[in-house]
Amino acid sequence: MTPQDQKSIGVFDSGLGGLTVLREIHRVLPRENLIYFGDTARVPYGNKSSSTIIRYSREITRFLLKQDIKAIVVACNTASSYALEAIRELTDIPVLGVIDPAVRSLASEAPPQAVAGLIATKGTIASGAYDTSLRRNGGSQQLIGQPCPLLVPLIEEGYASSQAADLILRDYLQPLAERGVEYLLLGCTHYPLIAASIRRLYPHFKLIDSAAETATTLQGLLTKANLLGNAEKPVIDLFVSDMTDSMRSLKDLFFAEKVDRFEVAQVGDDH
Amino acid sequence: MTPQDQKSIGVFDSGLGGLTVLREIHRVLPRENLIYFGDTARVPYGNKSSSTIIRYSREITRFLLKQDIKAIVVACNTASSYALEAIRELTDIPVLGVIDPAVRSLASEAPPQAVAGLIATKGTIASGAYDTSLRRNGGSQQLIGQPCPLLVPLIEEGYASSQAADLILRDYLQPLAERGVEYLLLGCTHYPLIAASIRRLYPHFKLIDSAAETATTLQGLLTKANLLGNAEKPVIDLFVSDMTDSMRSLKDLFFAEKVDRFEVAQVGDDH
Repeated sequence: MTPQDQKSIGVFDSGLGGLTVLREIHRVLPRENLIYFGDTARVPYGNKSSSTIIRYSREITRFLLKQDIKAIVVACNTASSYALEAIRELTDIPVLGVIDPAVRSLASEAPPQAVAGLIATKGTIASGAYDTSLRRNGGSQQLIGQPCPLLVPLIEEGYASSQAADLILRDYLQPLAERGVEYLLLGCTHYPLIAASIRRLYPHFKLIDSAAETATTLQGLLTKANLLGNAEKPVIDLFVSDMTDSMRSLKDLFFAEKVDRFEVAQVGDDH
Repeated sequence: MTPQDQKSIGVFDSGLGGLTVLREIHRVLPRENLIYFGDTARVPYGNKSSSTIIRYSREITRFLLKQDIKAIVVACNTASSYALEAIRELTDIPVLGVIDPAVRSLASEAPPQAVAGLIATKGTIASGAYDTSLRRNGGSQQLIGQPCPLLVPLIEEGYASSQAADLILRDYLQPLAERGVEYLLLGCTHYPLIAASIRRLYPHFKLIDSAAETATTLQGLLTKANLLGNAEKPVIDLFVSDMTDSMRSLKDLFFAEKVDRFEVAQVGDDH
């Protein structure tokens, strides 16, 4: 058996957006080996049924478990909504989603009567997963959901800091500002890349970034379980289920650090 | 047997964008019964392999052939690039894609030395299908491809006539204007919905709309084959492989006319 401190942290997402979570984990825990799987052949998950999302998540979990990992981070809002329990049935190692860490931060930091905005994809807003998590975590804050369907394509096309993105951000965020929003949850793994524009346009919003909150929560969890790594030269391996040139550019957009491997791996029943 | 003039025209696309082609067909041929299939469960086709696109196209063709049709219009640029021959193996009725009609219009109308721009999705540009078609049709015009990945999401979100879309259109089209483009091929079924903005920003571009060209070509083809319909109250049926609220809004965006049916139908080996 490999000692715990050499084992990797497994991270997965429907695509490459979850690399913003990997980036935060690497920043907070720079001596951990990391393995990322992006299901780029089947992205996006947001418009798929819950049973399909659970099946895909279990396939990816089995792949990650073969790599000798000590924790799993589900860096995908959709899979975090539907598949955490199904993943936990497959393993005893810690499994962490991206929704609870952000929501717990809101529940503990914001006044009980505070109004918070949640920006996310249509699918995440429709799922009600953040509301459910907020109630489960004892938060009494008001949560106003705002779907922002154009932000992911704008970010992926390099338009995060553009006049066009500013105009569209105002369309999405002005109604929240007018309803007294003080806290803004970034409910999509892509959004850290547009956070600077949001801060510039709405400096009074207190941003809660689920990527950063998830990394901090993971750090606490590994510390408590005595599972912290101390790799001198941590290995970072990225796997995707499909590779194209545009995925190579997205990888650099979301995760500029050098990686040891970036290659295709197949998951699922046939493999 | 139903007489030819009662048979329907079958139209399919990976999603709902092909409804702009259906709309043009209905405008040009208002006495034809129409059946549309949108593969909304598997959209988009642009990032899938050619063998997958051929398999899906054949599944949909078999579904349409069961509905007693007299012609098939492949209202999808990706399927038009890869699957026309495979579809023709399944039937003797006329099969028409959206690429050749637009290209033939360019080849015959533009001077031999003219410079034409092609705006389309990344997948269509990368496929080289318009260049191939232009050479096959004897066109000597120069074709400059410009991928416009943000136009489909902008159109689908109702941003076709917005300041943000104008800014992004200028980014895409200004380089074409500077390279002497006179003709502009709209190489994506969504783009007729943003044509008004393009005309306003670049009034000297002569637009070639593949939806309109395809409808006119179909009209000529049916006339020549003596297959024109004369339904008093033509029936328009829309089928999709997956239905959500956002698909209902997209249907209205692309095809405002009343339809007789708009419902889910399954295609493929299991059905």
